[in-house]
Amino acid sequence: MKKIVFLFYEGMTPLDAIGPHEVLSRLPESQIKRVAPQAGHRLITTDTTKLTLVAEYSLKEVSHADVLIIPGAREATTFEEKPEVLEWIRMIHQTTTWTTSVCTGSLILGAAGLLQGLPATSHWSVMDRLKKWGAIPTQQRVVETGKIMTAAGVSAGIDMALTLAAKIAGDDVAKRVQLGIEYDPQPPFDCGSVAKADPAMVKALLATFESRFEK
Amino acid sequence: MKKIVFLFYEGMTPLDAIGPHEVLSRLPESQIKRVAPQAGHRLITTDTTKLTLVAEYSLKEVSHADVLIIPGAREATTFEEKPEVLEWIRMIHQTTTWTTSVCTGSLILGAAGLLQGLPATSHWSVMDRLKKWGAIPTQQRVVETGKIMTAAGVSAGIDMALTLAAKIAGDDVAKRVQLGIEYDPQPPFDCGSVAKADPAMVKALLATFESRFEK
Repeated sequence: MKKIVFLFYEGMTPLDAIGPHEVLSRLPESQIKRVAPQAGHRLITTDTTKLTLVAEYSLKEVSHADVLIIPGAREATTFEEKPEVLEWIRMIHQTTTWTTSVCTGSLILGAAGLLQGLPATSHWSVMDRLKKWGAIPTQQRVVETGKIMTAAGVSAGIDMALTLAAKIAGDDVAKRVQLGIEYDPQPPFDCGSVAKADPAMVKALLATFESRFEK
Repeated sequence: MKKIVFLFYEGMTPLDAIGPHEVLSRLPESQIKRVAPQAGHRLITTDTTKLTLVAEYSLKEVSHADVLIIPGAREATTFEEKPEVLEWIRMIHQTTTWTTSVCTGSLILGAAGLLQGLPATSHWSVMDRLKKWGAIPTQQRVVETGKIMTAAGVSAGIDMALTLAAKIAGDDVAKRVQLGIEYDPQPPFDCGSVAKADPAMVKALLATFESRFEK
């Protein structure tokens, strides 16, 4: 039974987690746990109009994962102010087959010291901040290095999870999951990456993001 | 202020809702409400390893929506056994600019009597069941007819929501949202639709789905 563990936390971006969650929950012989820093009542208010998710476990209740998934957050929380979360991530990482992040979740992996000298990706707007943690910013949708996999912004978690599904359970299972969630994307515009979007739009959006991010 | 209302219910598929939720929550001047059939404590257990979401409102508390989004469910619930939900949907539909569904959510719109004689899509595995409700099964990722928009399975809600965002707030806003969620999909396989997948895989997956669906 593969233990797949999602870190849920206040201010997280829901789709960062729910994309991979929908994919990985469809793997045969897998068990998913949602874990949050706080003990007791674990209603997790996300960064998206206060959509609330529930985490069933606290950090202390989970000491092992085959796959760890860390979503990002609009505020790009790194948990520097909560060293016990970073400590838990380092401990879990010692037990994983795959340690992964989506979007700004890679800044959390970085803060935990797991990306030193390694290529990694993140949301395009915070790419440079990976350097603070010794990582090598790498503009790819999914970056794999050793047992660490990082995905680009928000929706990239779906692509990462399917890649992961293939590695864990084989191509046929991953294809079945992709067909199951009818993932044949047809975005109405071709502007979903910095390379493809209008530079003026990139600049304007970056300005609104930066006004929100913690420094 | 655009009122965007999601119907949450027991057994729903999380990504059906959270994909569009992530997109539509980023529209300027919009307000999102999550509404559930039950009164009181509204912890919504989804069909995905019991991931739990919270709905803040009951049906009685919401009587108007500019946009209504109805997600699907693995069990393809149609609420025939809960006519008050179908009644609420019909009432809200009278107030909407857009009434929409993702995945098997279109079977709920159908059961509410809103798809009579209209083209609609759904998850590929239940396409034919749209006929029961007088709809014309239409194999497209997003189907628009009057003020009703239906999306194909699970992940198609993201494409639908971006299409909707462009109609509500204009192409530039929709493109900005697409860039914000870095939606530049790169699925690892090209098998996300019935037309592209191996027919043997389609058949096998359909068999597992059908064993689960309510008749």
